[in-house]
Amino acid sequence: SRSYNITLLPGDGIGPEVVSVAKDVLSVAGAKEGVELRFREMLMGGAALDAVGVPLPDETLAAARASDAILLGAIGGYKWDSNEKHLKPETGLLNIRAGLGVFANLRPATVLPQLVDASTLKKEVVEGVDIMVVRELTGGIYFGQPRGFGTNDKGEEIGFNTEIYSVSEIDRIARVAFEVARKRGGKLCSVDKANVLEASMLWRKRVTAIASEFPDVELSHMYVDNASMQLVWNPKQFDTIVTNNSYGDMLSDEASMITGSIGMLPSASVGESGPGLFEPIHGSAPDIAGQDKANPLATILSAAMLLKYGLGAENAAKRIETAVTETLDSGFRTGDIYSPGTLLCICCQANNKTFVH
Amino acid sequence: SRSYNITLLPGDGIGPEVVSVAKDVLSVAGAKEGVELRFREMLMGGAALDAVGVPLPDETLAAARASDAILLGAIGGYKWDSNEKHLKPETGLLNIRAGLGVFANLRPATVLPQLVDASTLKKEVVEGVDIMVVRELTGGIYFGQPRGFGTNDKGEEIGFNTEIYSVSEIDRIARVAFEVARKRGGKLCSVDKANVLEASMLWRKRVTAIASEFPDVELSHMYVDNASMQLVWNPKQFDTIVTNNSYGDMLSDEASMITGSIGMLPSASVGESGPGLFEPIHGSAPDIAGQDKANPLATILSAAMLLKYGLGAENAAKRIETAVTETLDSGFRTGDIYSPGTLLCICCQANNKTFVH
Ligand SMILES: CC(C)[C@H](C(=O)O)[C@@H](O)C(=O)O
Ligand SMILES: CC(C)[C@H](C(=O)O)[C@@H](O)C(=O)O
Repeated sequence: SRSYNITLLPGDGIGPEVVSVAKDVLSVAGAKEGVELRFREMLMGGAALDAVGVPLPDETLAAARASDAILLGAIGGYKWDSNEKHLKPETGLLNIRAGLGVFANLRPATVLPQLVDASTLKKEVVEGVDIMVVRELTGGIYFGQPRGFGTNDKGEEIGFNTEIYSVSEIDRIARVAFEVARKRGGKLCSVDKANVLEASMLWRKRVTAIASEFPDVELSHMYVDNASMQLVWNPKQFDTIVTNNSYGDMLSDEASMITGSIGMLPSASVGESGPGLFEPIHGSAPDIAGQDKANPLATILSAAMLLKYGLGAENAAKRIETAVTETLDSGFRTGDIYSPGTLLCICCQANNKTFVH
Repeated sequence: SRSYNITLLPGDGIGPEVVSVAKDVLSVAGAKEGVELRFREMLMGGAALDAVGVPLPDETLAAARASDAILLGAIGGYKWDSNEKHLKPETGLLNIRAGLGVFANLRPATVLPQLVDASTLKKEVVEGVDIMVVRELTGGIYFGQPRGFGTNDKGEEIGFNTEIYSVSEIDRIARVAFEVARKRGGKLCSVDKANVLEASMLWRKRVTAIASEFPDVELSHMYVDNASMQLVWNPKQFDTIVTNNSYGDMLSDEASMITGSIGMLPSASVGESGPGLFEPIHGSAPDIAGQDKANPLATILSAAMLLKYGLGAENAAKRIETAVTETLDSGFRTGDIYSPGTLLCICCQANNKTFVH
């Protein structure tokens, strides 16, 4: 039987409760397929700040690097919002992404048939939406140098950041996106602001160049302002989207909200080699933390992505996906996806476990 | 009788046809209120590139500066999309904004009762939505230096831009936004990415500082990824939004699409002093140009904003707004807002004129 080491990073807010459920689900699904999983829980985010004074302790990064895959809950909360930059939970998240070199963030936005009514968009607009946003995750304005505060020539304080991409950074994320598109609907839409920004002009040029390696994938380009509209107007036109770190942050959240199932959506962050990082796309939701109200399905589905993309354990992943479908088919819901006629199941954690069979 | 000089910049695609209608509407509405308008049409965008080889001829900027207000149609088109930066129609637009110093871009996103069904969002979600996005327009990553192409230390080509804001740039747009919010619902939401970017941290700090001058306005802060979701989830929570140039580009387009009435929405760009720039938020739509299919109402409503904010001619502005309402009430529609039971009126331009009485 195969055996793997999984780093768990529960983090803040609802992070610990959803990771704890997903861990149990992972164990059960793995065991049934002869995949043994050993878990090690490490500190990150606000939890790490409170315990040891930094958002990403060295031991956490080292343990994550040495493991086979990482499952993260969520980080952040009002409590740390006015911390200085190096003491923000978010800085821990950015540092672990960079430290693991996970430059490709895959964010599916899928409308599950059972949840089509949860969207604020009309049924005919969202039914069948199945978008994959491939977001560049370790470059661009999130990491570009120079950055910081200073004084301009009028003696005024300024704040600045650098949006920057190199050819190799664009090429590698483009290749991942074309590969993903090839396995999906065969359509890739690259989103940029090449009518204004040089960083986007280079982005467009390189994505266009890489396209010649993937003649079977249909490439289109869209400006980011238009993309943010088209997602609302006709989300079904999209198959796979590739974009930079900052636009990916916004567009993937917008796309997920369009499905109405933000509490349902997982993500995978992967690099050239080394362990991948798997996390729900929702945040730490401090307002409902500890009340057993959080929807654990996004983390459970992230665990499925971990099995599939991180460990190549497709059968175990399939078991989890089926369990989620059956849980929903049985009518169990958390508050965020509740609709009349379904069962509001605060103890949904337990039920999700039951359905892994 | 008062008399004013108006610069018309028809631009590209559907620009000339919608500006031509709005010009007639302006004349009629002005005349009825004793406001005489003299028009001068100038070249800009792709039209200027084709005619004289630059996207913003010096004479155009000079004429615009010397006039009392500017009405712009739209610029850009596939034809010029692969031009070098200094030969892009968009560069002309950025240069006229900078040249006029119009740092505050007001973009209303309103759901008109007659058009509530045009939205892809459910009626109960969009009914009554009335958002004003105040976008910073002459700073940030659109204009920040350094920018360009270069080589990194690995010898690779790079593309880069600088997101940068100074205290005075933030303070002046914040003051405009607080003033706007004060005259509306009294709520201002400032959108940034202060959990990651230094430019946003300074933004949040200064907006918070300026709030003390406006104790009657309720200020909140939201991260941009969350804002892009919240606009889809519950747009009615927003009254006035203030944000930077890049986020404003996306969020105002997203907000306008949520109303379903993108062919209906005007915008005003104003500075400390000097003439304002008024334009529809929609683009040049080259695909339908010259077919008399374009919805002229966004430009007509921009003309109303020109009268109101640009010339202080509130009564003339009111006439136009009433004419638009009556045109819609009479059932006239263009293709973009057509729904069964309304009249698809290709010759709608003429009708809109008729209704200014
Ligand atoms: C918490 C924040 C730093 C992060 C990001 O912007 O990348 C989050 O919004 C996300 O999308 O994972
Ligand atoms: C055409 C483009 C340069 C422009 C912008 O990004 O500002 C447009 O999208 C807008 O919003 O007015």
